[in-house]
Amino acid sequence: MDKFKTPYYAVIFTSVLKPSDSYGDMANKMEVLAKLQPGFLGVESAREKVGITVSYWESLEAIKNWKENIEHKIAQQKGKEEFYQSYKVEICKVEKSYTF
Amino acid sequence: MDKFKTPYYAVIFTSVLKPSDSYGDMANKMEVLAKLQPGFLGVESAREKVGITVSYWESLEAIKNWKENIEHKIAQQKGKEEFYQSYKVEICKVEKSYTF
Repeated sequence: MDKFKTPYYAVIFTSVLKPSDSYGDMANKMEVLAKLQPGFLGVESAREKVGITVSYWESLEAIKNWKENIEHKIAQQKGKEEFYQSYKVEICKVEKSYTF
Repeated sequence: MDKFKTPYYAVIFTSVLKPSDSYGDMANKMEVLAKLQPGFLGVESAREKVGITVSYWESLEAIKNWKENIEHKIAQQKGKEEFYQSYKVEICKVEKSYTF
């Protein structure tokens, strides 16, 4: 749980999966790829009934570039067709942050 | 996974727990109490190695009021003393949101 300097940006990705074996592989691959993008700060994930992944970015432009990344676009398409029952994406400006 | 009308606010609460039996009771109680607060929109949670709870609010004022709620303050104190190894709170303005 790194602490970043505000303001920065967060993408909250909330999803419900269909039953599937190979989602984990794709998710891991996308996490490795996200970490290579310019402006990437960090990521946290947990899944029970819903999965929540929060990725952190320096700017809205970095988020836009990641959204448009070609391998990520293929994964998004595959996600809609095979893996996700539903999902929600929220682009947020983090205005304040504190830790314990 | 409700969709709310932007702009709205999100509190991303990321935590790592100490081993404990009674955290679940407190977390459930706080969720019930949060839902009664003015300006509360919704909440999503998942926990694996880290726990991520995202609560959604109409305004920064609603978040501030919830932070100052007396029962919530007691729970925050108890959380620091008993339950959390570490946590992070991020106050965010949700600028864009889309669903599938």
